[in-house]
Amino acid sequence: MVVVMAPEATDEDVKAIVDLVQTAGGDAFVSRGVSRTIVGLVGDVEQFGALNLRSRSGVLDVMRISVPYKLISREHHPDRSVIRVGGALIGPDTLTIIAGPCAVETPDQTLAAARMARAAGASILRGGAFKPRTSPYAYQGLGEAGLRILADVRAETGLPVVTEVLEPASVDLVASYADMLQIGTRNMQNFALLQAVGSVGKPVLLKRGMSATIEEWLMAAEYIAQRGNLDIVLCERGIRTFETATRNTLDISAVPVAQRLSHLPVIVDPSHSGGRRDLVLPLTRAAIAVGADGVIIDIHPEPKEALVDGDQALVESDIREIASITAHLSPLMGRTLSPAPQPAPVG
Amino acid sequence: MVVVMAPEATDEDVKAIVDLVQTAGGDAFVSRGVSRTIVGLVGDVEQFGALNLRSRSGVLDVMRISVPYKLISREHHPDRSVIRVGGALIGPDTLTIIAGPCAVETPDQTLAAARMARAAGASILRGGAFKPRTSPYAYQGLGEAGLRILADVRAETGLPVVTEVLEPASVDLVASYADMLQIGTRNMQNFALLQAVGSVGKPVLLKRGMSATIEEWLMAAEYIAQRGNLDIVLCERGIRTFETATRNTLDISAVPVAQRLSHLPVIVDPSHSGGRRDLVLPLTRAAIAVGADGVIIDIHPEPKEALVDGDQALVESDIREIASITAHLSPLMGRTLSPAPQPAPVG
Amino acid sequence: MVVVMAPEATDEDVKAIVDLVQTAGGDAFVSRGVSRTIVGLVGDVEQFGALNLRSRSGVLDVMRISVPYKLISREHHPDRSVIRVGGALIGPDTLTIIAGPCAVETPDQTLAAARMARAAGASILRGGAFKPRTSPYAYQGLGEAGLRILADVRAETGLPVVTEVLEPASVDLVASYADMLQIGTRNMQNFALLQAVGSVGKPVLLKRGMSATIEEWLMAAEYIAQRGNLDIVLCERGIRTFETATRNTLDISAVPVAQRLSHLPVIVDPSHSGGRRDLVLPLTRAAIAVGADGVIIDIHPEPKEALVDGDQALVESDIREIASITAHLSPLMGRTLSPAPQPAPVG
Amino acid sequence: MVVVMAPEATDEDVKAIVDLVQTAGGDAFVSRGVSRTIVGLVGDVEQFGALNLRSRSGVLDVMRISVPYKLISREHHPDRSVIRVGGALIGPDTLTIIAGPCAVETPDQTLAAARMARAAGASILRGGAFKPRTSPYAYQGLGEAGLRILADVRAETGLPVVTEVLEPASVDLVASYADMLQIGTRNMQNFALLQAVGSVGKPVLLKRGMSATIEEWLMAAEYIAQRGNLDIVLCERGIRTFETATRNTLDISAVPVAQRLSHLPVIVDPSHSGGRRDLVLPLTRAAIAVGADGVIIDIHPEPKEALVDGDQALVESDIREIASITAHLSPLMGRTLSPAPQPAPVG
Repeated sequence: MVVVMAPEATDEDVKAIVDLVQTAGGDAFVSRGVSRTIVGLVGDVEQFGALNLRSRSGVLDVMRISVPYKLISREHHPDRSVIRVGGALIGPDTLTIIAGPCAVETPDQTLAAARMARAAGASILRGGAFKPRTSPYAYQGLGEAGLRILADVRAETGLPVVTEVLEPASVDLVASYADMLQIGTRNMQNFALLQAVGSVGKPVLLKRGMSATIEEWLMAAEYIAQRGNLDIVLCERGIRTFETATRNTLDISAVPVAQRLSHLPVIVDPSHSGGRRDLVLPLTRAAIAVGADGVIIDIHPEPKEALVDGDQALVESDIREIASITAHLSPLMGRTLSPAPQPAPVG
Repeated sequence: MVVVMAPEATDEDVKAIVDLVQTAGGDAFVSRGVSRTIVGLVGDVEQFGALNLRSRSGVLDVMRISVPYKLISREHHPDRSVIRVGGALIGPDTLTIIAGPCAVETPDQTLAAARMARAAGASILRGGAFKPRTSPYAYQGLGEAGLRILADVRAETGLPVVTEVLEPASVDLVASYADMLQIGTRNMQNFALLQAVGSVGKPVLLKRGMSATIEEWLMAAEYIAQRGNLDIVLCERGIRTFETATRNTLDISAVPVAQRLSHLPVIVDPSHSGGRRDLVLPLTRAAIAVGADGVIIDIHPEPKEALVDGDQALVESDIREIASITAHLSPLMGRTLSPAPQPAPVG
Repeated sequence: MVVVMAPEATDEDVKAIVDLVQTAGGDAFVSRGVSRTIVGLVGDVEQFGALNLRSRSGVLDVMRISVPYKLISREHHPDRSVIRVGGALIGPDTLTIIAGPCAVETPDQTLAAARMARAAGASILRGGAFKPRTSPYAYQGLGEAGLRILADVRAETGLPVVTEVLEPASVDLVASYADMLQIGTRNMQNFALLQAVGSVGKPVLLKRGMSATIEEWLMAAEYIAQRGNLDIVLCERGIRTFETATRNTLDISAVPVAQRLSHLPVIVDPSHSGGRRDLVLPLTRAAIAVGADGVIIDIHPEPKEALVDGDQALVESDIREIASITAHLSPLMGRTLSPAPQPAPVG
Repeated sequence: MVVVMAPEATDEDVKAIVDLVQTAGGDAFVSRGVSRTIVGLVGDVEQFGALNLRSRSGVLDVMRISVPYKLISREHHPDRSVIRVGGALIGPDTLTIIAGPCAVETPDQTLAAARMARAAGASILRGGAFKPRTSPYAYQGLGEAGLRILADVRAETGLPVVTEVLEPASVDLVASYADMLQIGTRNMQNFALLQAVGSVGKPVLLKRGMSATIEEWLMAAEYIAQRGNLDIVLCERGIRTFETATRNTLDISAVPVAQRLSHLPVIVDPSHSGGRRDLVLPLTRAAIAVGADGVIIDIHPEPKEALVDGDQALVESDIREIASITAHLSPLMGRTLSPAPQPAPVG
């Protein structure tokens, strides 16, 4: 941290800052220029935050230098992490496709979607049992019945399952069925929920808040990590801007930026960012080419019957295209497709 | 809802839409123009949403007309509501000042702040016991000990208390101490929490999400109302924009817009929107002049010692100014200051 | 400016920075902390910008401290300026109403609007002769014929005229008719136009760009000032955000922020920010209460016939309300209404 | 266009709308539902805009259906256009690299950059002679001397030249040297400039405004087209959002969206969108993979000496990487690299 003193600051003002910082267990060094004096701070930045340095006499500005997250930072952990989800991998050497229906509706629909997912090259199945909806009158998901369907489909297809959890009270329930817990965009700063998934032994898919800065997103990951769970995958899914042609604006630059700041894998959701089926394939190509560690895609065997977000689900005819894209682009990016686990043998 | 058919849509396409809508219990009327056919829908909009009309053959676009919230809408409830918090009122004929420390730190600090609040004309005391913080390493509040301090200060000063609740599991606890429950900006779409406060018999202060549209904000209120609790006060607290001179951009227009759409009272938080003490008084004047039903202000007896947001807290010397602003502006706006309840007599 | 060196920076790296700065005519002072070294720079910030310090070996970050504008800054000019437009004043002791039609259409319409403006308390007439339109097929204004109408109406009513100029080639023409030149939001960074109006002896009304930061807005004013014209009035007119209920989001906080940074007057456009007639009166009250030096309002004698922006124009019945608002709020803000000049006597 | 009548609208209200539209030369069809009546409009949308239908008695809302641009729309021109710049091509079958220094500084720097550009696979040279700068004190470019350098380097290397033009008065001058005229982001709605470049026989590179919607961007292209110049290339260069980790947020989805709405080629500027050298290669890959018709990249032989935007310029060691990216990704996208024209033989 750097404290910039005002031109009219007195020697006493400067000394008061130094004393405060030292009392708080930190170290301060003063440098006097022709027009301004600057005090550099060394120590625990969080503790300095409580000193309210900006309000002190003679202080013009306070600027932070080091990053405010630690456990997920790449600074002390230069190698990028590999996260294991069931038998699938997400990390720097693989390209991982996660696919499935936005909402679990019936066993048949889910199984059909899972088979489409496998055909597309997916190694993880996504599907929502608890759906966060802007309107209380909209379809809210099947709940535990949906979780059971997902578990049955996993047994049938071998694909591990990621599904969203909406509140701390459901974390244990969802974790008892799922292989990976998803934190949705509206809950990125639901700190109680972050702490709850941080205390459970399942990997977490953390979607970026729709108006969260990259730094806030990483801080949300730090909340999970701080409870002991470092198996976190970050998911860029579009941010809110003034543009109305797309549901959200996919922040494609966030992928390399987050990968440089954190050792955690970063994947992209091309379905929810655009909100339009015709953008899913182009955005999937862009995501892989920018260096994403994977993509998470909505597919539905009958999009016109979908209860949620049918507008953006891929259909049968798109599946070959996804498989072709990944087959061609993965090697260029130095990656191999994460292999899909096989169903456990019966008997 | 209006379905706009593509120029190339066939009669069968149009008939299919009409059939779908009627099967779903709605009514459809068709109008054919020279270049386009339009189908108007009457009935339950949410149910129509599940029909995925946009994906149907021949459909160009689907547009919604009526508002998606009902209980909190002013359409069927033209008179603006009055919400009672302890002995204080928030509504169209009063101006209500809510004031207090951002975070409850000590009994002395809270009591001193409450006395400042009263002197400023406040009839409700604010104070955070559970603090949502972007960093897991930042000060998180006193928890239940903070709630007890608030209750003690209420007994001493007579001021009813509003305080934030962060998760469904804490709602009963917080409701057992507080007179009003605050939903913070990061939790505006924490639907489990909205439903939990909707099921408890205490009024709710619902802050607008930092990137929520006014419609989403009203839908969040509808979530609370749908559980039977209509004692909701909306609070505009600034939205996220590209501007960096202020912490958030106070959307002053949101006050009259929300008041026109909903019968619920709307207040303004001039402290968190600007994030700068020097903006609190000008923004308070603007809020009252635009027609807000109240303001909620951070005050702290010793801002330089504040553990949270000390930069923006008002100090002793600002108190008279607040009282003067409200005394002069309230009558111009046809309002009287909501009177502060008195402490219960001892004995 | 402050240069923050990386932990691994060598003594040579630091020396190289110091040498560079000194060669560029500046002064540098070094301070070494436990983990970081910081170099403070004194001198011409713009010149330092050309040194590309951020790319130099060992440099982690470069931060600017002082403001990048000079002539319009309040730092060296603490008294707020008063700008004279014809016989009207805009400054810290007055409240100035500018009103008139969005577009000049006919002599009758303009004269009727000017009389409404006067009745509302306006001392300056606004009216567009050259209209910037998003579509090339939309009405583009009367051009010079519109300027002549404005001049005739000024002769009739005494009200000085402000009107927009769209390109450098028209500046002399517009200046030959108008008392004040308006730079519209789309041209805030049309630097050739800024320089052109900076070279002419007429005051300038500089609207904020719809996505300009306050700093960029002040830099645009500096462009005008640098050509010798310091008679500039800043106009906040709403910024672009994700909110769609209003055409733009009025950034009411920008008024006190800009007044603190610059000595120039700051006014508000409540008509174009909201884009809705029902918001004009509430936003006018908010603007005056926040401390604006004036407002600029669209009025039209027959809004339903208006060729441009009729949705937001005030009508006859609103006029008394405007006059009442300013009569009551001005004294509270320590201002008197800027008196409207009288027409020159005939003969 | 669709006019939605309010529930309380009378038959006279509806008839008045129909009469108005017919008087304006359009056709109106009425459809009455249970709760609402809707009037569909057929004819010239721009003319309807002047009717102020939204302000008419009984009108609840007015919605536009068809797109407001014509000449550049793909609706009546389904084949995507190929634009010829000197001997280079930009269109659906080629991948075109435009590269060069942000600002022309010296003949040597420009020639060296042009050779790097050629080595990277570029077929067009970019370079700024007139620079739009936020600060009037920043480097503004060499002006005509810079244009002469660009022309000399073209003679030497064969690469056609694109350079920015800042004001209508300079269009003829710039067009006399350049092969393509660039309209910068700040001038996207400088309508006088758009019309000026629309009247000159040189292709135009139209950068998206930093807060322009895709529709506004296309309308700006329509301004150019309406003057008879249809040789327009659209350039996505990042939009302004709340995210501060990158200078702008590259809106990668805008590429397929604009290509679907317009027949004009769309390229991407990965240098200015991120504003960081480390993002240029990832964003170039993403741009090609999403389907862009080309990219425009800053390169500088000595970035640390660059007078403008040196932070983001590629250097020698990046050149091979660019060539490798395009060599591998072009065939996957069904494109061939646009060949670079050769210098005219001397003699």
